[in-house]
Amino acid sequence: MAVTRNEVRAGAYYDSVILMQLQRGLATLPDVIDAGVVMATPANCDLLQAGGLTSDVDAGPDDLLIVVKAESEQAALDAISRVDELLTRRRSRASQAFRPHSLEAAIKQLPESRWVLISVPGRYAASVARDALRFKRHVFLFSDNVSIDDEVSLKSEALAQGLLVMGPDCGTAIINGVGLGFANRVRRGAIGIVGASGTGMQAISSAIHNLGYGVSQAIGTGGRDLKKEIGAITTRQGLAILANDPNTKVIVLVSKPPEASVAADLVSTATDCGKPVVVTFIGYAAPARHIGPLYFSSNLSDAAQLAAELLSVESSLSIAENRDARPASAGYLRGLFSGGTLAYEAMLGLQLFLHPLYSNVPIVEAQRLTDPVTSTKNTVIDMGEDEFTQGRLHPMMDNDLRLRRFAQEAADEDVAVIMMDVVLGEGAHPDPASELAPAIEQALDRARRHGHRLDVVMIVVGSEEDAQGLDEQVERLTAAGAIVFQDTIEAVNSVREILDPKTQSAALPVDLAAFQEDLVAINVGLETFHDSLAAQGARVVQVEWRPPAGGNEALMSLLDKMRT
Amino acid sequence: MAVTRNEVRAGAYYDSVILMQLQRGLATLPDVIDAGVVMATPANCDLLQAGGLTSDVDAGPDDLLIVVKAESEQAALDAISRVDELLTRRRSRASQAFRPHSLEAAIKQLPESRWVLISVPGRYAASVARDALRFKRHVFLFSDNVSIDDEVSLKSEALAQGLLVMGPDCGTAIINGVGLGFANRVRRGAIGIVGASGTGMQAISSAIHNLGYGVSQAIGTGGRDLKKEIGAITTRQGLAILANDPNTKVIVLVSKPPEASVAADLVSTATDCGKPVVVTFIGYAAPARHIGPLYFSSNLSDAAQLAAELLSVESSLSIAENRDARPASAGYLRGLFSGGTLAYEAMLGLQLFLHPLYSNVPIVEAQRLTDPVTSTKNTVIDMGEDEFTQGRLHPMMDNDLRLRRFAQEAADEDVAVIMMDVVLGEGAHPDPASELAPAIEQALDRARRHGHRLDVVMIVVGSEEDAQGLDEQVERLTAAGAIVFQDTIEAVNSVREILDPKTQSAALPVDLAAFQEDLVAINVGLETFHDSLAAQGARVVQVEWRPPAGGNEALMSLLDKMRT
Repeated sequence: MAVTRNEVRAGAYYDSVILMQLQRGLATLPDVIDAGVVMATPANCDLLQAGGLTSDVDAGPDDLLIVVKAESEQAALDAISRVDELLTRRRSRASQAFRPHSLEAAIKQLPESRWVLISVPGRYAASVARDALRFKRHVFLFSDNVSIDDEVSLKSEALAQGLLVMGPDCGTAIINGVGLGFANRVRRGAIGIVGASGTGMQAISSAIHNLGYGVSQAIGTGGRDLKKEIGAITTRQGLAILANDPNTKVIVLVSKPPEASVAADLVSTATDCGKPVVVTFIGYAAPARHIGPLYFSSNLSDAAQLAAELLSVESSLSIAENRDARPASAGYLRGLFSGGTLAYEAMLGLQLFLHPLYSNVPIVEAQRLTDPVTSTKNTVIDMGEDEFTQGRLHPMMDNDLRLRRFAQEAADEDVAVIMMDVVLGEGAHPDPASELAPAIEQALDRARRHGHRLDVVMIVVGSEEDAQGLDEQVERLTAAGAIVFQDTIEAVNSVREILDPKTQSAALPVDLAAFQEDLVAINVGLETFHDSLAAQGARVVQVEWRPPAGGNEALMSLLDKMRT
Repeated sequence: MAVTRNEVRAGAYYDSVILMQLQRGLATLPDVIDAGVVMATPANCDLLQAGGLTSDVDAGPDDLLIVVKAESEQAALDAISRVDELLTRRRSRASQAFRPHSLEAAIKQLPESRWVLISVPGRYAASVARDALRFKRHVFLFSDNVSIDDEVSLKSEALAQGLLVMGPDCGTAIINGVGLGFANRVRRGAIGIVGASGTGMQAISSAIHNLGYGVSQAIGTGGRDLKKEIGAITTRQGLAILANDPNTKVIVLVSKPPEASVAADLVSTATDCGKPVVVTFIGYAAPARHIGPLYFSSNLSDAAQLAAELLSVESSLSIAENRDARPASAGYLRGLFSGGTLAYEAMLGLQLFLHPLYSNVPIVEAQRLTDPVTSTKNTVIDMGEDEFTQGRLHPMMDNDLRLRRFAQEAADEDVAVIMMDVVLGEGAHPDPASELAPAIEQALDRARRHGHRLDVVMIVVGSEEDAQGLDEQVERLTAAGAIVFQDTIEAVNSVREILDPKTQSAALPVDLAAFQEDLVAINVGLETFHDSLAAQGARVVQVEWRPPAGGNEALMSLLDKMRT
């Protein structure tokens, strides 16, 4: 009958590779059925339990728990008695080479190093990263379980010094052709990647390689970088680096969907890169395949495909927009729609760069307009909604209400752009331009006289056969001064060009030199990362790291304070 | 000084066109500055107020409110005194032609009619629609403000009789080349549209025409059809009609994103159409450009473009799948991922057809798995999440935990498919297939012996240069019996083919004859719709409709009960 025995080693720290090797070593001993070697966190104890390694022991997250299931009690105890021997065997091998015991010593040994890789347990990681920044090194922070407060302070500090903190929980980067953390061997090329998703970057870079193209740099940011608290600091730095890097022709940005305010800021930054940007916000409802220099891919392999296509179409690489020709209009957008779906489609695009945005048909509840009769900041109204149509004709038939609202919005000097749709066809007004064009002309005229910069952007939906005359309607609205499109996304893009402020992010301080020399690095944590860098031909020094103060939290915090 | 005067006519019903015309008539009288003529709902009173037509009057939603703003009190009163004259002028014109006063009479006059258009005010609309169904007519229900309970009962009744109820709040349809409600004049062709979005259908059909293609039928469903309460009854009927219609080669489905359970059902129906379906769930995060016969467009003009492209690529029209060759596996999916983004990307696709779906990294909170250690129904686990990696190597480096979980899932006879990813490259396990392949082989072998139908679908991410050997890894996993892909979406599609039950919806009773003859209709409500049908050459009879019992609710409900 199987017997399970365990041993607890209080407060013992070992690197996860060593724990894995110890577990494997135990499992191969005679008459041992299974073994588990873990730090005794509640999650790990649950996992042992689920795997049939019952472990009803008194141990905490800082304790090493060794469980052996064997054919007999003797076999289990024999196995446990060999733990030290197995650990020592491993250690003596590791200490064959001389290794510095601190980051400072490692830097003395390899002063050309510009990068520090950190993969120590989460609670020690922020302190090591802070040291690295003090020594003016860029940080690749693989460790997870780092607090968001630490992330904010590390990234703010790094930003101020023109340094990068990739992570925490950054799985992947490729810097100057060398993969950090988990990374695929891909040829160098003209596609740069910035990503808050490690496997996303791996899938995209592999697909780029397998399509015959290559990667200039792949800059990981850590999964939380696009959260509001962090404000995409590393992503914006990454975009600035790739914008300035002469070897990068196309940029791929990959992440889960960011919050609205962060997205608006990021989209401005991406738009000002001067290079096409393939946006892959996995799980994001892209408003179009293409708005200005932004290309939206629906998934990872699609992102690689799109980037490769952009690279092979020479013309797409020169971003035709001369955004400096006309400074952005200061002011708000007001959208007055008769078609609900057109309003919704427009908002999907507008919310990319306009924040905040309000509506009586919001995409998310936070966008809900309190009073449909009163616009506030950027507002899109669907005038075909119930509140506007009870006992009244639909706005496609009767322009009265919309014309009144238009006059009201146009007289508001905080308004820079008014967007309207005109839907032609059976059932609709027989000649909408006959009523809309004079109103537009009058409003633009009044605005000009008042020195109020106002644009009217319109979407006309109709077939060439519609009785109202598609071409005639477009012509009359254009003659009245409106900017007229037949596609919502083109209209949205026009609004973007009018309103979107040129961001300064592309002008963030950037240490381009670090992206032009051979990678030289210091590794603190998992030895496999040291070995992987060495195997790729990079110069690297491994720090023989141990938790400070033997893992004693109070003492650690004291030491930390004494240093700063 | 401007003076505002008003008049209230209690309980007076007029069609909205007449109100609009009265308002216009008043506004052109001498010394009148502005006029408002509305049913005195709170929303309408707010709108009058916002437009400067103050109306502090005692009037309710059933009352007609007439407000005149004029240069003098005399001018205002003069204008109001002419209301009856203006109304009579309009009426006498309308009554020149003989018109039936009931639906029954209209049907006697035009027995070939198969369609009834209804655009009376919302609270009367359900009753008229019920009459139409009693007379075995298809219904185009333009009216809004119809309760969801009425919608459910009308649509269930219609479904049972093989009839369509398009609406309520259905703005648009094109049946046999004739536009109902708001519709554009487009050539007939091979693209069929089913849509819960009126302007969406208008934008798509116009774009199809302007691209040189044509529309077979455009079947509106009303904006709420994809809500859970309705369960997409009309959409599924529409898909069944287009699936059976020999003139339709490509189908476009347009709507806002449906709820998960409705989406799963709809996607099954769409997949079984035997024709390519362009899915345009505006504001939906499409998992890919293409899964099986489903093509996801990002917006309305993109939908038209995609449909046109599919039509011009002959090969896409024959849906290659032989889904009958192998009946669907009964059972659940379990996904065990090492890459978080791959898990997320897979779930975006899986949730299209697998419901319910649970995960420790849910896309929406409702998908959250209570206990990551225990799978339930369809479950996707990201084993790289914190709960699995504290003091333990990442699953890309150490397969131990995943192999244990795999064995556990494979032994569960409720499981039909297990999905796993393998991410190669620097930092990852040096030879993952050496550990995974034997486990897969053993599990499949065990399943076979137990008569348990089990498939293992895998995604391998890597470049051809990776040290593990991309081809070798794929080969060994394939040799072990796994179905291996290098792209998440292809893997998802494979899972769909294994699991997706063939739906019976395509076999819904369909009155195809109504879609093959010239459209003959009866119009109850807005006269402009009658005029528009007549102008398009359709035979149509207008019902001279008035609210039953003069709009008296109690009497109406009594009359309604007496009839049924």
